[in-house]
Amino acid sequence: MSGEKSGGVIGVGLIGFGTIGTGVVKVLRDNAAVIEARLGFPLRLVRIADLDLDTDRGVSLDGIEFDADASGLINDPNVHIVIELIGGYDVPRKFILEAFAAGKHVVTANKALLAQHGREIFGAAASAGLDIAFEAAVAGGIPILRSLREGLAANQIESILGILNGTTNYMLTEMESTGEDFDVVLKRAQELGYAEADPTFDVEGIDAAHKLALLTTMAFGAQMVFEEIPTEGIRGLTPLDFKMAADFGYRIKLLGIAKCHRKEGGEEQIEARVQPTMVPVGSLLSKVDGAMNAVEIRGNAVGPTLYYGAGAGEMPTASAVVGDLMEIAREIKRGGRGPVAPLSYLPEHIVKKPMVPDSDLSGRAYLRLRALDQPGVLSLITGALGDEGVGIAQVVQRGDETGSGTVPIIVLTHRANEAALRRAILKMETLPEVTEKVRLIRIEEEV
Amino acid sequence: MSGEKSGGVIGVGLIGFGTIGTGVVKVLRDNAAVIEARLGFPLRLVRIADLDLDTDRGVSLDGIEFDADASGLINDPNVHIVIELIGGYDVPRKFILEAFAAGKHVVTANKALLAQHGREIFGAAASAGLDIAFEAAVAGGIPILRSLREGLAANQIESILGILNGTTNYMLTEMESTGEDFDVVLKRAQELGYAEADPTFDVEGIDAAHKLALLTTMAFGAQMVFEEIPTEGIRGLTPLDFKMAADFGYRIKLLGIAKCHRKEGGEEQIEARVQPTMVPVGSLLSKVDGAMNAVEIRGNAVGPTLYYGAGAGEMPTASAVVGDLMEIAREIKRGGRGPVAPLSYLPEHIVKKPMVPDSDLSGRAYLRLRALDQPGVLSLITGALGDEGVGIAQVVQRGDETGSGTVPIIVLTHRANEAALRRAILKMETLPEVTEKVRLIRIEEEV
Repeated sequence: MSGEKSGGVIGVGLIGFGTIGTGVVKVLRDNAAVIEARLGFPLRLVRIADLDLDTDRGVSLDGIEFDADASGLINDPNVHIVIELIGGYDVPRKFILEAFAAGKHVVTANKALLAQHGREIFGAAASAGLDIAFEAAVAGGIPILRSLREGLAANQIESILGILNGTTNYMLTEMESTGEDFDVVLKRAQELGYAEADPTFDVEGIDAAHKLALLTTMAFGAQMVFEEIPTEGIRGLTPLDFKMAADFGYRIKLLGIAKCHRKEGGEEQIEARVQPTMVPVGSLLSKVDGAMNAVEIRGNAVGPTLYYGAGAGEMPTASAVVGDLMEIAREIKRGGRGPVAPLSYLPEHIVKKPMVPDSDLSGRAYLRLRALDQPGVLSLITGALGDEGVGIAQVVQRGDETGSGTVPIIVLTHRANEAALRRAILKMETLPEVTEKVRLIRIEEEV
Repeated sequence: MSGEKSGGVIGVGLIGFGTIGTGVVKVLRDNAAVIEARLGFPLRLVRIADLDLDTDRGVSLDGIEFDADASGLINDPNVHIVIELIGGYDVPRKFILEAFAAGKHVVTANKALLAQHGREIFGAAASAGLDIAFEAAVAGGIPILRSLREGLAANQIESILGILNGTTNYMLTEMESTGEDFDVVLKRAQELGYAEADPTFDVEGIDAAHKLALLTTMAFGAQMVFEEIPTEGIRGLTPLDFKMAADFGYRIKLLGIAKCHRKEGGEEQIEARVQPTMVPVGSLLSKVDGAMNAVEIRGNAVGPTLYYGAGAGEMPTASAVVGDLMEIAREIKRGGRGPVAPLSYLPEHIVKKPMVPDSDLSGRAYLRLRALDQPGVLSLITGALGDEGVGIAQVVQRGDETGSGTVPIIVLTHRANEAALRRAILKMETLPEVTEKVRLIRIEEEV
């Protein structure tokens, strides 16, 4: 167990000296006075470990030991809290478990790791009687996990709708405002540093699913690994989708959606998915532009609430990391571990909960497909929907802009059963007149 | 000091069994399971005190002692936490101090009391080593105080812009959408229960100033009583103001504004005011309609963040009160007081800070006045602005709709010095051709 350091200083060790790590150094230095005015004692960064010892990060390292020895840092008696900011799975997992073994509290921003190996890591922290804090792992600087865990703790959480990935929100905002294709916008996002060279994690929705898995557990006490979350990215959206969405009164956002369906008799079923979603233009979520994040949380007492801010970036993420350091430092001073369960529910109340079957889900939907430009085709398509009881609110057939003899057809449905909708889509796709997979974009009306 | 009750139950006593109090009873009952799954032990409402013993609140009081004896409740050994929900100043002040004297922690939603007698009450809590929690006092169910105190604790807070009063936000939304006069909308708000019979506290901005005083102290460590905050209500806004605001690309919101001006050499000066303010139609704050609240907080690391939700009402306010109960109950179990300073800064770091002088403030402004419908009048008015160096972005002179021989004139200024603007307004008002006081509405561009 880490005790209080002589002189009252709490020592911090940082593993991973990249962008966020540099931000942490800056926040601890620039805001040292206000941090101490709130804590009553200083937080001191005593040691940094990173394999890259050469790059100039543009910050003074006076009084900070800096080498490539992460294990040395973890076992340094001057280090009371270890910050893990290296990313990835195996190496950070090893370091975090090593930190717990050495009696050190841990702060991490690593959502991928927690979404994958959460049970092991939270279990190890609990066994060791140590804190693990990870506010920076979801929605960057927005204090969303604390709000869920403490501010809204008196609520049965009903739903979470989140713009959880800044890269894709930037790209969607750009595609909408410029009318450009996905590939053009992706290239620009990469040039501007908003998207990585391999953009898979972001554009395929995996990063959002990592975050949603954590939120789902914290909101509903539901054990959840991110592979269980049906995840659809933004690749395949076309300029036409944005235009039609606007005509229908919607904007397209990549949402992480989690809802708890509470059945009579008390059974709880979980709905969780990441998908491009149409939200009404009047809603706050629809106004969240560029690389910003926002999360709407509804509780049975508080009603709808929304939290907005920068979901990534050097300083916003460092703001969350240092907030976590302060919380843990206070607890070290009291000689223990924080009293709030890291995942909001006590471990014994986090259990596997069934997913809602498609047959119990319903909502409005937008369908885009291409079909042969022939008489009777529209009737076949609308017939496939009608056969499954899916009501049609609007149908738009556009001109053959490609000269291919096929035309785009857009259907806006009434509220329909998800399973029926899927069956209708399968039927449409088996029609020889339909020349492309049907693109489905779900609509969330109540945001 | 309150110790742990035998059996592990934490006992709660409620003084004030009105709307919010009833909500607290409902939340504690309806959400008992999830509260216990997060806490690890139950919270039990053991006693209620209210002078009205007759009204049926529609909730079961099984197992709850209910009488008019607040002092008896405070001194009841089964009560560990006292909730004060009676409102007003003298009586709740007495009960809260009595609770501290009896070693009981306190939860209150009483912003008026804290804005007026905060130093005494926070001082008494600190001396007694007891907690005072008041999340419900600002922005109802939105966990804004916790976010400021913990989630954003690593930041130097730069500014707060808040829609802090649901009644006036409802009225402004109605005035804008219907084009009706203040008095008509006020009457409807009273009929609907959004406004009280005596609406002074709400419409004159006093309630917002109470909340802003608390936020200002917590954001900047600045001792602040609400009388020091220049406060302007929404009375006097006319349908023309809303129409012109829309033409110029703004919406009108009653904002609580607090900013910290950090001078070279480290001096901090505080800007704080409550006033109707024009905000750009593209901003999130401008989209906050009806009785909802929202607060934008900027920190030097996190950048802009925004928090939205219900600022009042039975269940949202009860959500915040019970969240506070849970936090305190955890600390009672640990045998002490929470480690986070209730006002975010440790008491010794909350000091008097000077207000920014008008001569150091600047911004764009909207001016509306009436003047004689005569040649040369516009030149006199614009001349008064020009003489003080206030640049004009747009001028609109409207027709004489009243047949009074006077016309409304609207001026939109460029960014101008506040002191110069005030001098120019004084000059205009001394012109015999100007027949009414000038109405000034400030513009916040950066929201």
